[in-house]
Amino acid sequence: MTDTYPSQLLERAVSEIAKLPGIGRKTALRLSLHLLRQDSAAVRALADSLTGLRDGVKRCHVCHNLSDTDTCGICADPRRDASTVCVVETVSGVLSIENTGQYRGLYHVLGGVISPMDGIGPADLEIQSLVERVEAGGVREVIFALSPTMEGDTTGFYISRRLAGADVLLTTLARGISVGDDLEYTDEATLGRALAARVKMG
Amino acid sequence: MTDTYPSQLLERAVSEIAKLPGIGRKTALRLSLHLLRQDSAAVRALADSLTGLRDGVKRCHVCHNLSDTDTCGICADPRRDASTVCVVETVSGVLSIENTGQYRGLYHVLGGVISPMDGIGPADLEIQSLVERVEAGGVREVIFALSPTMEGDTTGFYISRRLAGADVLLTTLARGISVGDDLEYTDEATLGRALAARVKMG
Repeated sequence: MTDTYPSQLLERAVSEIAKLPGIGRKTALRLSLHLLRQDSAAVRALADSLTGLRDGVKRCHVCHNLSDTDTCGICADPRRDASTVCVVETVSGVLSIENTGQYRGLYHVLGGVISPMDGIGPADLEIQSLVERVEAGGVREVIFALSPTMEGDTTGFYISRRLAGADVLLTTLARGISVGDDLEYTDEATLGRALAARVKMG
Repeated sequence: MTDTYPSQLLERAVSEIAKLPGIGRKTALRLSLHLLRQDSAAVRALADSLTGLRDGVKRCHVCHNLSDTDTCGICADPRRDASTVCVVETVSGVLSIENTGQYRGLYHVLGGVISPMDGIGPADLEIQSLVERVEAGGVREVIFALSPTMEGDTTGFYISRRLAGADVLLTTLARGISVGDDLEYTDEATLGRALAARVKMG
């Protein structure tokens, strides 16, 4: 890009915004010009929310979910079932499962999956803390809600080996055809697993 | 949306980001989680660039283009042709024309177009300052580079009437088929104008 901006401040804002994933310089310019039309207070509120998020947000010391406090709202909620722990890769996983409205247990956020290609080993993830959590007792079921990929499967397998000695039920999310999906467009691997895992009707 | 975020800070950042045009809550969440993975300094640089832009940027007192100084870099450049003024609606217009690399004159940013439906009249735009600029002398040509819409045409017509007494050439951007456009997909209005304004070959 050889754009010549009339203002260094504009140039700087466009460059900073364009660093965000999925946002190019054209969109960054459009957003910058939009911000110029807003109240100074509104722009400050946006800027403060970004630094406030980055500097203020913590990790729950139990499940490693994002939290404003040392223990997150889910772990601190006495109405949640503390005997069930759902293992997810990231915070997005917690949000997705919470949005189903069907889960009342707790979580454990690994922070990723084992991926030798990316140099991520078990020690880089919150696996040891999960093992300790289970060994401390009180957990009856660990649900693996990891990506249905090679890395996700490897991570689930590794953790299941680490938990082999514990008296705990290990489960994983059902794999099968998506609700509303057209059979014609379902990939063979998914269809094959859905067939093998077929359930009795009615 | 009934999303329940694990953190008020995250909720606030998502809400603020989702106020930006073209960005929904899903994208805002993705951007927020991205920012959480960045250095604190990087997030602060982004936030500072936004408030710096909003509070620091000025309008050039001559052409009303964005500028870091009282007179913008284009108006202050002695190599530019001060006898030609290109009238554009917004800063985007300046950037678009500058990017062609083919214009060496100055600009005048109106700040919009006359649009009675939106309650925008001539007094809401930098029209009086344009008239005064032309009346002050030294301008030989005013080029209208406004949107090819009813509002753009009306604005151009209104300004041309206001400048009727001045000894200045008024021109407008050529309307015609776009370079690389397929004739089959060119709308009738454009094609009709392109036909009427046909030029001798060679």
